[in-house]
Amino acid sequence: MQTLNVDLGDRAYPIHIGAGLLQQDLVRPCIRGRQVCIVTNETVAPLYLEAVERSLDGLLVDRVVLPDGEQYKTLESVNLIFDRLLECRHNRTTTLIALGGGVVGDMTGFAAACYQRGVDFVQVPTTLLSQVDSSVGGKTGVNHPLGKNMIGAFHQPRCVIADTAVLASLPPRELSAGIAEVIKYGLIYDAAFFDWLEASMPRLMAGDPDALAQAIYRSCEIKAEVVAQDEKESGIRALLNLGHTFGHAIEADQGYGQWLHGEAVAAGTLLAADLSCRLGWLSEAELARIEAIHEAAALPVLPPAAMTPDAFLSLMAVDKKVLDGRLRLVLLKGIGEALVTSDFPADTLRETLQHRLNLARG
Amino acid sequence: MQTLNVDLGDRAYPIHIGAGLLQQDLVRPCIRGRQVCIVTNETVAPLYLEAVERSLDGLLVDRVVLPDGEQYKTLESVNLIFDRLLECRHNRTTTLIALGGGVVGDMTGFAAACYQRGVDFVQVPTTLLSQVDSSVGGKTGVNHPLGKNMIGAFHQPRCVIADTAVLASLPPRELSAGIAEVIKYGLIYDAAFFDWLEASMPRLMAGDPDALAQAIYRSCEIKAEVVAQDEKESGIRALLNLGHTFGHAIEADQGYGQWLHGEAVAAGTLLAADLSCRLGWLSEAELARIEAIHEAAALPVLPPAAMTPDAFLSLMAVDKKVLDGRLRLVLLKGIGEALVTSDFPADTLRETLQHRLNLARG
Repeated sequence: MQTLNVDLGDRAYPIHIGAGLLQQDLVRPCIRGRQVCIVTNETVAPLYLEAVERSLDGLLVDRVVLPDGEQYKTLESVNLIFDRLLECRHNRTTTLIALGGGVVGDMTGFAAACYQRGVDFVQVPTTLLSQVDSSVGGKTGVNHPLGKNMIGAFHQPRCVIADTAVLASLPPRELSAGIAEVIKYGLIYDAAFFDWLEASMPRLMAGDPDALAQAIYRSCEIKAEVVAQDEKESGIRALLNLGHTFGHAIEADQGYGQWLHGEAVAAGTLLAADLSCRLGWLSEAELARIEAIHEAAALPVLPPAAMTPDAFLSLMAVDKKVLDGRLRLVLLKGIGEALVTSDFPADTLRETLQHRLNLARG
Repeated sequence: MQTLNVDLGDRAYPIHIGAGLLQQDLVRPCIRGRQVCIVTNETVAPLYLEAVERSLDGLLVDRVVLPDGEQYKTLESVNLIFDRLLECRHNRTTTLIALGGGVVGDMTGFAAACYQRGVDFVQVPTTLLSQVDSSVGGKTGVNHPLGKNMIGAFHQPRCVIADTAVLASLPPRELSAGIAEVIKYGLIYDAAFFDWLEASMPRLMAGDPDALAQAIYRSCEIKAEVVAQDEKESGIRALLNLGHTFGHAIEADQGYGQWLHGEAVAAGTLLAADLSCRLGWLSEAELARIEAIHEAAALPVLPPAAMTPDAFLSLMAVDKKVLDGRLRLVLLKGIGEALVTSDFPADTLRETLQHRLNLARG
């Protein structure tokens, strides 16, 4: 087991990474009260709920099993968590445990942020995506029909337990979706990690536990470094959103849950890379490498053929990075370096969208 | 105009108190972006919305007018605010303005806490209760059918503008409900203020602007002192809840909006005082003074006759101050001094409830 400390002063917390951690007694030491509520979904519950419950012997344990899917990441689902907490009279010393992927983690964290104005929570991420992304950084929240993650809070977990053994049960599409976020860390922050990912992609795609553990550790390390510098995203943290502004537009247009978040981020990253290339910040060769690594991870590199540039521009206008009406995007200055900017011609953005939509239409 | 500073480090903010402040240009300097959304209700909008809008000339101003009443302090109402913000494409630099009483303030503050994980908000409280209580301290939130204020966040406003001239339009019942919270500050913190309130009650009840301004200033000052010592309510701040645990049970039992919050707090304060008296911490004479000042403010001093001790105990069991199953109450050690304790016999609490319910039944 490796342990990484996310350095956030009095809200610092550890991320434990390794194979078989669910069988170890790691959640229990994070629980400060006597009540616990495990939040999970219908897919994960039959696989891992019992193992987690077993490790909580002696505590008052309640559970909420939500339907599985991004389309259920809503205020209504969070309200089901509140209902259970109040029915079972959970008080301010309760701890919520998020057992599942990013959707479960985001909703459980948001419920913990708001229940009685804030209670403890622990993340037990069961997908690659949530292990490398949503379990680090304290962003919690739900979607609104008009925009993704528009309602939420910053709320740090007490600890994160990333058991790499659970990834063996992950469908291939979900593994790929997680790798999209791993690639992102290389692109925005660490060219050497990107090189390693290019070389290691066959092992990662085959589910090699050592390669996965290494990828997760470095991804969490990069994210933790960035978040420690900028917890509330006033600066550098925004770089973590490479591909996300485009990606969120794809998810909203297609209906939440149709494209996996990581798939939409992949297609969005290629849009950002293509635009960066048109602006002269990225070479054609680098763009080709970025396309190739996503293809090696079985990820989409083109947006949905049925979308239009106008659909993108309209959906992107509600992005949280928009400032006083100016769209800001995370773009690349080579592999391993990114920036947030609104300094690009609107026409070049439109050309990029049109070009890649044309490619998608074949 | 008097200005009080709430000292919370980088979240410090001013409270301006005085007559005619809505006609002055006080909101504008607090706005950091170009977008503003005023949240108000159907009662307040016809009276003051235009004056506030006039002071925001040059900004993009949207508005949400909610129905009036505690029964609308729900997640559904907050969702209406989110709908408007997203329809009108408000970004992270937007400012929400709460124009109304405590219900509007609590919901607007909670919406501001959660919209895009936190945006600015300004409080323009239009009731005495909200001027002395809910506008200070950063508690925001909504009710749940199983408990009051169970869902919420701590989120400090950028500033508070308490215009005492608006109190002239307040129905007498609402004025009294506000005075209940003013009396509370004397009871828990300042015996001399309590003496002054006893002497000044006729002027306060007649709406004397100077007396009201003085009562508001001292109330906010006490609350600001307490909150600055304990922002997240791990200690002394809980004293502000004198009468509230009983009061919340009354509100939940009667249906939100039937008893005004201040009315329920008044009856709850007398229950707390009666129990304190039975425990030997408060004299019979002090109990009589506390009863008399509430009667002079035209406030209820007895709980609803139709309630039972069991109804109280069951509803109080979900209170946020419950720790590991032990009910904790704010009780009095004389006038001007309070404590939070679970150190009372359950039978004495039951006797207190039964006694005052018997009195209520005549």
